[in-house]
Amino acid sequence: MNTLQETILSIGKIDGRQAGTLARERLDQLTMPYWALGRIMDLAVDLAQMTGRCPPPVARKNIVVMAADHGVTEENTSKYPREVTAQMVHNFVAGGAGINALAGQVGAGVVVVDMGVDAPLDGIVGKQKILSHKIGPGTGNMARGPAMPRGDAIKSIEVGIEIARQLDGSTDIFGTGDMGIGNTTPSSAIVSVLCDVSVDRVTGRGTGLDNDQLAHKKAVVKQALQTNHPDATDPIDVLAKVGGFEIGGIAGVILGAASLGKPVVVDGFISTAGALIAKHLAKDSVKFMIAAHKSVEPGHKIALDHLGLRPLLDLELRLGEGTGAALAMNLIDASYAVLTEIATFEEAEVSQAG
Amino acid sequence: MNTLQETILSIGKIDGRQAGTLARERLDQLTMPYWALGRIMDLAVDLAQMTGRCPPPVARKNIVVMAADHGVTEENTSKYPREVTAQMVHNFVAGGAGINALAGQVGAGVVVVDMGVDAPLDGIVGKQKILSHKIGPGTGNMARGPAMPRGDAIKSIEVGIEIARQLDGSTDIFGTGDMGIGNTTPSSAIVSVLCDVSVDRVTGRGTGLDNDQLAHKKAVVKQALQTNHPDATDPIDVLAKVGGFEIGGIAGVILGAASLGKPVVVDGFISTAGALIAKHLAKDSVKFMIAAHKSVEPGHKIALDHLGLRPLLDLELRLGEGTGAALAMNLIDASYAVLTEIATFEEAEVSQAG
Repeated sequence: MNTLQETILSIGKIDGRQAGTLARERLDQLTMPYWALGRIMDLAVDLAQMTGRCPPPVARKNIVVMAADHGVTEENTSKYPREVTAQMVHNFVAGGAGINALAGQVGAGVVVVDMGVDAPLDGIVGKQKILSHKIGPGTGNMARGPAMPRGDAIKSIEVGIEIARQLDGSTDIFGTGDMGIGNTTPSSAIVSVLCDVSVDRVTGRGTGLDNDQLAHKKAVVKQALQTNHPDATDPIDVLAKVGGFEIGGIAGVILGAASLGKPVVVDGFISTAGALIAKHLAKDSVKFMIAAHKSVEPGHKIALDHLGLRPLLDLELRLGEGTGAALAMNLIDASYAVLTEIATFEEAEVSQAG
Repeated sequence: MNTLQETILSIGKIDGRQAGTLARERLDQLTMPYWALGRIMDLAVDLAQMTGRCPPPVARKNIVVMAADHGVTEENTSKYPREVTAQMVHNFVAGGAGINALAGQVGAGVVVVDMGVDAPLDGIVGKQKILSHKIGPGTGNMARGPAMPRGDAIKSIEVGIEIARQLDGSTDIFGTGDMGIGNTTPSSAIVSVLCDVSVDRVTGRGTGLDNDQLAHKKAVVKQALQTNHPDATDPIDVLAKVGGFEIGGIAGVILGAASLGKPVVVDGFISTAGALIAKHLAKDSVKFMIAAHKSVEPGHKIALDHLGLRPLLDLELRLGEGTGAALAMNLIDASYAVLTEIATFEEAEVSQAG
């Protein structure tokens, strides 16, 4: 059995219901009106259930930022030139990007992974380490043919799984992030296929396209689907034909985290495309996902609804990199504080409701 | 000139536009698509503009929790007995309440103020200090007559102003919080009068009323308005007739913070009732308010719209105490990190959009 099959089969083996019940019972008795901290309390129960522990461990956080290039940039679907992917990886490693600032604010580590950036990145040094798992110098142009061979799609997911396993010993909470100029285009294709929703409804402005550019992007996504006929019942086929190396890597981190019984905070639109691949490979992986935020991309809400996830934040973010995941991790710390630091009615000798 | 008049006249004297422009110019050049961190970037500009400094100081945070009792509890509008107000103040001082946990998570101080709790609280000791400014042992029953004399309404606001001034030297960001069994009832009355919206639309379930109890509560609020005829053009009259000591105190903290050029994070429904009093006394005080979250109480959204404020979070909170303000302070730290730690395109040598 290969890594992917083995991982899929191991998801959902932990029964976290008892820990979830313990968390709920504690929260019910806290000195406040019933469930008065709403979704912060829901989150505490979810974390206990995911980890099978009450209180759930949450202190050590790592955000895995998967980077890769996309052949479809030949079709001019992004405002930014392709070389920005590699430049931004240098920026991540130097510690100067959005994810560095926001991960730092919440005390999370940043793990940068070269899944297939079209530039030599081995050996670059800075504040952050970079892991080299380059599958190729970017995908093929999905508007003309498949983005990658089926074998590479499997490999990209397995790299993500391996990274989750490597980080297991130092991670309580995983987060996902992405970097790849052009990657809202394959993400739109994936969401359209796996959620069975029209390209027009799921495709957005990405880094800031105007109306003409958006119309062109939609046409490119449609062309990619017509050229490749991805099989909606086969998530590997979808990833291979209209995906990306970093999207496969994100799916892998999610599957890996789920198989380890660890919560994974899913960032924005690209990460959620990866989460869809993960769900269609292993339905129970959704039980370990926490949706960080609702992005500006119209397809994001559609994908979250398909996963049955409610985002924690709605702050008009559209950056990716894992920045929304980092912001949401503050709420994880808050939910832990609520679960562990507030007195019960009995402990504090406070009268209960009549 | 008295403290209140003097404070009102001093609000809005700082011209923060230059600092706001500096913040905006820096954020425009960060290595990301234009304004890709959305409301986190808006918040950074707001903070610069409020403080007149770029970057704005945000490190030292204090949440002022105003506590008082309400005569209207005689009408059975709350599920909890009146003595819970004093019990919860003991809980705050002991460090066991929701606000202690959430303020601790974000590194904010908690300042508990007895504005008029119906129990002797002088000299109680614990992890938190308590400030004694008891105006009386709770308000009068607003369903039968005015909640307090006009002089006490002014005094409650002036206490809040004085506390803001006392904390000035140790506070960059203020937060407001409340404790007072029954206080969604006067808050509903204030919102109805100052926003000119029907009692039925603004009155909610508070700590968890059922349908019959909610109908009764609405009737009590209507009776209070019919009995007292508060003058919507005179916010002191509204506070005196259908308000509360802690609501006046919150209005005072907001006015005090605004007069000092300091941002103030307004918590939920009761704090926003205080913010309405502040706005109607000094329109420019709104420029210093940050709306933490949208609460479950239906009148909260109406009050925020009236103030022209968009809440940062929407987490189904209905606790008060300043808990939403504490949660939102995480986003303030995040916006500071974004403003100060992310490299510009030039600094990081990243190509810009075509």
